[in-house]
Amino acid sequence: MLPSGNPRIVESIGEGVSEFEVGDHVLTLFTGECKICKHCVSEKSNMCQALGLERKGVMHSDQMTRFSKKGKPVYHYCAVSSFSEYTVVHSGCAVKISKTAPMDRVCLLSCGVAAGLGAVWKVADIFKGSKVVIFGLGTVGLSVALGAKLREASQIIGVDTNPQKFEKGKAFGVTDFINPEDCSEPIFQVIKQMTDGGADFSFECVGETEVVSTALKSCSDGWGVTVTLGVPKTNPEISAHYGLLLSGRTLRGSLYGGWKPKSDLPSLVDKLLRKEITVDDLVTHDIPFDDINEAFRLMKEGKCLRCVIHMAK
Amino acid sequence: MLPSGNPRIVESIGEGVSEFEVGDHVLTLFTGECKICKHCVSEKSNMCQALGLERKGVMHSDQMTRFSKKGKPVYHYCAVSSFSEYTVVHSGCAVKISKTAPMDRVCLLSCGVAAGLGAVWKVADIFKGSKVVIFGLGTVGLSVALGAKLREASQIIGVDTNPQKFEKGKAFGVTDFINPEDCSEPIFQVIKQMTDGGADFSFECVGETEVVSTALKSCSDGWGVTVTLGVPKTNPEISAHYGLLLSGRTLRGSLYGGWKPKSDLPSLVDKLLRKEITVDDLVTHDIPFDDINEAFRLMKEGKCLRCVIHMAK
Repeated sequence: MLPSGNPRIVESIGEGVSEFEVGDHVLTLFTGECKICKHCVSEKSNMCQALGLERKGVMHSDQMTRFSKKGKPVYHYCAVSSFSEYTVVHSGCAVKISKTAPMDRVCLLSCGVAAGLGAVWKVADIFKGSKVVIFGLGTVGLSVALGAKLREASQIIGVDTNPQKFEKGKAFGVTDFINPEDCSEPIFQVIKQMTDGGADFSFECVGETEVVSTALKSCSDGWGVTVTLGVPKTNPEISAHYGLLLSGRTLRGSLYGGWKPKSDLPSLVDKLLRKEITVDDLVTHDIPFDDINEAFRLMKEGKCLRCVIHMAK
Repeated sequence: MLPSGNPRIVESIGEGVSEFEVGDHVLTLFTGECKICKHCVSEKSNMCQALGLERKGVMHSDQMTRFSKKGKPVYHYCAVSSFSEYTVVHSGCAVKISKTAPMDRVCLLSCGVAAGLGAVWKVADIFKGSKVVIFGLGTVGLSVALGAKLREASQIIGVDTNPQKFEKGKAFGVTDFINPEDCSEPIFQVIKQMTDGGADFSFECVGETEVVSTALKSCSDGWGVTVTLGVPKTNPEISAHYGLLLSGRTLRGSLYGGWKPKSDLPSLVDKLLRKEITVDDLVTHDIPFDDINEAFRLMKEGKCLRCVIHMAK
């Protein structure tokens, strides 16, 4: 299930919009790209000031909704209204993609998989031969592993409390597996031993701020980089001993893997079409829209990676 | 006062050491460089595994002291024994410098000034036109300002509770001054307004972990980089809301400005000799060794920048 990204077919176009045609296939984007603000103009940022993450359930442009029921507004979800058959989005929150891209798989690129790949390729920018450790082997963590494998990392250590994730992880490049429940010493010490002093890069994909500190401790003095991807459910405060930074570590984060959604996403879709990246193994369930609550249940219980919701035809 | 760095003249040389001659001028180094460990071999690290920060007061090589009094060991301070007239150091904890370098000024390069310059040039690697904010205008913070000025930063905002620091700061390139005690709104909001959304780079030179969070908030979404230089006296835990990282910020730290002490320091000494960098304004007191406790008092009371201790001739 990927609540914030889904592919659509353009049904009609608003006044003044020239970049789309009826029938175009698009990915809708939970964070858009206006292409004129100072963040869009900068090569370093994807934090569009006009079409950034929208939390109030309204359109960026006029702070209104486009849906209503009996005179009352029906709010949009993340500017894209993922779970509706038809939607209205700002042209800056959609990107045209190839009509040959399979819609039930390319949907994964509009959030989790892109976040994982971007964390490795753009944010950490790992080098060939890197030693990498990934905390949490869900869809995002496995995408990090895939990105690391494609950059020819020499060691990809996955950390997860679910031992089934190791077999799953192998297909994505995980070379070593640590189950914290099997460890008698602190995990960071186990990792330091496995990596001759610490990983070059560590990725926090669990969504627990406490894990960020462990991820920092697990990487090397001098050059270790920790990238935090998870969004915590509870404690939003990351805490780390200053000495971890003083000894030369870097802590970074990014939204959406640092990709500019309109400028960069088509190249990821092309990689999918060329089979340079594959997401099939991340889709554990294909579920009709009528059973959406079953998909939510699977997600909450940790019994799926991604459930793809199919609208009735 | 710079307890961890001081220049010396070589008086005798141990067996097997060929890189020094009697009469050479050297800077002693609180963190050394063996040139063969994996950190010394890497271009990315200055965290020598053999001659790193020594806290037990002994020689790295044999864990013994070279001084004793009535049969009891007299411990070394930071591998260099700063406040003794004669000392014994590992050859990896000394670097040969030009005999023309003024010893009573070049001493500042062996810790604080190098840390500040390196934070700007190597760790943050700021670009021409950067907007920079510096928390704390002591010797380290002023050295950060100097480094930013020499890299042609467009705005250098100094934050300090001592209003006298603004006049002092101007000579080092500070363009704007904020006294937190004069602000009715949070400092990071003041800085965001002054910089059209946030500084490109912020530097924590106070030594309070709480300031790191403010420094992160003060820099821009998307590309803002915070470098932490201070060593906290009390709370060692840095805390930051995960959203500050998710929106694209980076938190970095380094020891000694990221410089490799033996490989890089001579180039800083050369810059001093060519007057590309100047440290004269950082020396507020020249004090004879007999009055060293007065120097400590000035430091503790915040009434000096650097006191240079002169041994009796």
